[in-house]
Amino acid sequence: MENSPPFPSIDVLAIVGVGLIGGSFAAALRKAGRVKRVLGVGRRPGPLAQARRLGLIDEAVSLEEAAGQADVILLASPVGSMPALFRGLVPHLRESTLLTDAGSTKADVVKAAYEALGERVGQFVPGHPIAGAEKTGPESAEAGLYEGRHVVLTPLPENSAVMRQQLTQLWEAVGARVVLMDPESHDRALASVSHLPHFLASVFMEQVAACADADLRLGLAGTGFRDFTRVAAGSAEMWRDIFMANREAVLRELKDFRVTLDEAESALRDEDAQKLYDMLERAALARRFWGSRSGLS
Amino acid sequence: MENSPPFPSIDVLAIVGVGLIGGSFAAALRKAGRVKRVLGVGRRPGPLAQARRLGLIDEAVSLEEAAGQADVILLASPVGSMPALFRGLVPHLRESTLLTDAGSTKADVVKAAYEALGERVGQFVPGHPIAGAEKTGPESAEAGLYEGRHVVLTPLPENSAVMRQQLTQLWEAVGARVVLMDPESHDRALASVSHLPHFLASVFMEQVAACADADLRLGLAGTGFRDFTRVAAGSAEMWRDIFMANREAVLRELKDFRVTLDEAESALRDEDAQKLYDMLERAALARRFWGSRSGLS
Repeated sequence: MENSPPFPSIDVLAIVGVGLIGGSFAAALRKAGRVKRVLGVGRRPGPLAQARRLGLIDEAVSLEEAAGQADVILLASPVGSMPALFRGLVPHLRESTLLTDAGSTKADVVKAAYEALGERVGQFVPGHPIAGAEKTGPESAEAGLYEGRHVVLTPLPENSAVMRQQLTQLWEAVGARVVLMDPESHDRALASVSHLPHFLASVFMEQVAACADADLRLGLAGTGFRDFTRVAAGSAEMWRDIFMANREAVLRELKDFRVTLDEAESALRDEDAQKLYDMLERAALARRFWGSRSGLS
Repeated sequence: MENSPPFPSIDVLAIVGVGLIGGSFAAALRKAGRVKRVLGVGRRPGPLAQARRLGLIDEAVSLEEAAGQADVILLASPVGSMPALFRGLVPHLRESTLLTDAGSTKADVVKAAYEALGERVGQFVPGHPIAGAEKTGPESAEAGLYEGRHVVLTPLPENSAVMRQQLTQLWEAVGARVVLMDPESHDRALASVSHLPHFLASVFMEQVAACADADLRLGLAGTGFRDFTRVAAGSAEMWRDIFMANREAVLRELKDFRVTLDEAESALRDEDAQKLYDMLERAALARRFWGSRSGLS
């Protein structure tokens, strides 16, 4: 078993949630010639019909049908829906099926998997593709989304080496770079570089939009505002789930952020131009260095 | 005088500060065929030489020479440098010269202009082109920078209608949309939609970069992080000056932001998923609406 060959191609892939993340995974595997048939599962008929029109999926099916037919299943819906999905899948899941997810938090998804899947948990390899999430719906899916992006896998001790390897190969086939971590490290890091910025951007957007003179302000907003607030346009449902799932880590990051904010505010209040300059310069150097290394900027 | 024709073309334009803002203004006017000769003034020889190599300016001159030769002078250097520039210009300024600036704050620049220019203050029409500032230096200048962007003018009672009109025409010639406001309204609005986001992005970048495990975190940062922190790469000198000049308005906005932040944090701490969802949804709708109207997103 450990020496099984890699997937030459997936016969049947099922995508649960046919939005940006799931739709792009299907489109990318199709483009790479790595999948024969794609099933789509979703709560609402509209996006499923659109995913079919766009050629992202071949057929819309129920969760039970997907569990009984698919070789690989990707759960790409908000993390709050994972427990119910695991419970719905497990009675129908074929023994050879590789189950994975694209949830933005990992500790809670892993916990839900152990609870619902029991001795079948070895079939579930948790994952998180780190790719843009401010766009939603099948129409935002694109085959190139994962090109050069990181995908974190947080394998379970119950996963076989071959399953880990197969999933790694799938993500690499769509251009992603796979990183292995434990769920807690993943959640702490993501609370810092993804969840907290989203929280701050949403709070800021809410504050500006609630002002009596919001129209005047927003009329003068430029590209800096555009970039800073872009993530705040993302799905409220998805992000509510992320914040609830990763609550403690986000609160911890927010606490640390407030310490730095207090210092910067004091410098400004005290007219300490040098201290302010030093902070801005450290931030600018760090951001430029990250930009030059990440390939994202 | 009030019926003078618009500038058919500027014979001599002087740019004080040959970076993104000044360099782009020169490049755009040149491309529009609205300027014959461009003089550049700067503190350091390197950028001036590069601006010349790039064809942004024809000659590097002293502030005094610019004052004595230019028909139009744009001050495009950090706002903290404006008082000294006004003092340096005034003894040599020709009576017909139109002086303007691109400073990101207006009340402090207007105050400095009254103090230094005295009865010549009518020659100074304050302005602020709202255009990206995370890139710096002559190499970032581009003729298309002002296409479709807002330029705020905060004219003084001493400005003649024809001067206001001429400056408006110049900005419109490079594709900008001119908005007239008073300096205080400008500074309040910009504190909200430009200065506070920059402050928060810099504080956040500083906090992440100072973590013991910053490399791990930054390695997992994606496009959301990239967009949220982009402004933090901007010039520390320029932004220190902006924060110091618009200190009170920024502190006021920060106070309002903290009220909304406290509420959101409480909702998260109390696991009030509905309240969190409502906040995220209001922010998402406001951001999407702004995006669809601003032409920037």
